Amino acid sequence: MEPRTVGIAGLGLLGGSLALACRTAYPNAKIRAWARREATAERALAEGVAHFASTDLATLAPCDAVILCTPIGAMPAIAESLAPILAPTAWVTDVGSVKAPVVAALDPILGGRFLGSHPMAGSDEAGLDAAREHLFRGATCILTPTETAAPSTRSGVRAFWEKLGCRVRELTPDAHDRAVAWISHLPHTVAAALVDLVCSHHPDALHCSGPGFRDTTRVASGPPEMWAEILQENREAMRESLNALIHHLRAIDALLDDRAALAAFLARARDGRDALKTGTDR
Amino acid sequence: MEPRTVGIAGLGLLGGSLALACRTAYPNAKIRAWARREATAERALAEGVAHFASTDLATLAPCDAVILCTPIGAMPAIAESLAPILAPTAWVTDVGSVKAPVVAALDPILGGRFLGSHPMAGSDEAGLDAAREHLFRGATCILTPTETAAPSTRSGVRAFWEKLGCRVRELTPDAHDRAVAWISHLPHTVAAALVDLVCSHHPDALHCSGPGFRDTTRVASGPPEMWAEILQENREAMRESLNALIHHLRAIDALLDDRAALAAFLARARDGRDALKTGTDR
Repeated sequence: MEPRTVGIAGLGLLGGSLALACRTAYPNAKIRAWARREATAERALAEGVAHFASTDLATLAPCDAVILCTPIGAMPAIAESLAPILAPTAWVTDVGSVKAPVVAALDPILGGRFLGSHPMAGSDEAGLDAAREHLFRGATCILTPTETAAPSTRSGVRAFWEKLGCRVRELTPDAHDRAVAWISHLPHTVAAALVDLVCSHHPDALHCSGPGFRDTTRVASGPPEMWAEILQENREAMRESLNALIHHLRAIDALLDDRAALAAFLARARDGRDALKTGTDR
Repeated sequence: MEPRTVGIAGLGLLGGSLALACRTAYPNAKIRAWARREATAERALAEGVAHFASTDLATLAPCDAVILCTPIGAMPAIAESLAPILAPTAWVTDVGSVKAPVVAALDPILGGRFLGSHPMAGSDEAGLDAAREHLFRGATCILTPTETAAPSTRSGVRAFWEKLGCRVRELTPDAHDRAVAWISHLPHTVAAALVDLVCSHHPDALHCSGPGFRDTTRVASGPPEMWAEILQENREAMRESLNALIHHLRAIDALLDDRAALAAFLARARDGRDALKTGTDR
């Protein structure tokens, strides 16, 4: 059943974009938003991002679908506040980039009403200013169901993301965290390391850089506090991927003396990357 | 003095884009192109990319400006063929991604007529199909003058790139090679390593990836043979930057236990990357 009242907790890039997407996807639904700061709630109301917006979580009480879009560290306290005021038939999901700790914290608080989500969409920009309606269209959204989630929660959350144009996949929370270590958290770390290295070793070179450097390092512009939380919450899987990369870079050092082997490595990578171009993911 | 006849050796992405850019920048000039393959020369003629196109280097004899756009390994033989047939007042430059070996090889052949260039522009696509007129507009073009280059060559090459919309900077060939190791060759290597790792460790995860992974790894789609040549020709500077990155990634592993230090590293990187957004480089 489509939600008639959608609640969004947190009006940053993701929460703001979700509100805009829901306005279009559910034209008859009311959008209720909670923001940490008064100014953000007022802006969301003034710009029509939401029909109701407040810094009081009670504003989400009438919602039959709630999406938590705050930093993951803030989610347990919000869930504690929402648990007693939401209807037993409401469902709650989140958009956190790490799932095992979020699911472990929220399952006991929200029970069958909760199911973790991670839409693979974002930007190096942050905040309501950067929000845009089509952020989720065509993105993969990973759901991390546990046995705790009620069937109605599972179907409701899946239908919600599909309605927003996402391709939905399901993974366990642990499998999700291992996967995103490789495809999101490690690339972010490497992008930041590249910028940091150039700034410290060759600051003049930074301003000679071309489109390749800009693309490779774009994500390094993301909010540092948020990313520090993500990387640390997923540190076990991050360490595994980080050390595999270090090992691989050592092997590449040796390949620099062997043109054919170097070209073979680059051809493998080219083929892998080209698969993303021609796949259904683009 | 503006060239009246521009010669382009090699009609890949860069040569093709140069021909298109020169048609507009020098509407009264004739564009003469040399291609390795007959089919490419015929296409360039049929599509009006050049006024003359051939697989015979003699087609470039009447040019007063020649730009070598082939793989760097092919440049010395081309220069040997051109040296006796070009006018003494003609100038020659190239677009190779590594400068010290190119300059060392071409200076003795072409003498004062030669000056190395490296426009920081490109794409993960290759070939004449990918060519586009505005590829060089707004790009930094690094010139690597030596004492060999004649003053008229130096002024001619600089004016040429500026006319195409480039911001011109000068570095020694060695300084250029060290700089691009950090801002181009290392990022390329890392992008390829990330794709290769995900394909071997987590192939399923590849198809869950979002825009961050796509941008971070875009350059890995570049032509493997060309990049193997570039990385190997610049292997000394590459090794220095590669090992600095490995060292940095080891330090980041330790930072995963220290939220404040992790956030400080990410904030430094964010500031560095943001400087590229607001600078004149975008």
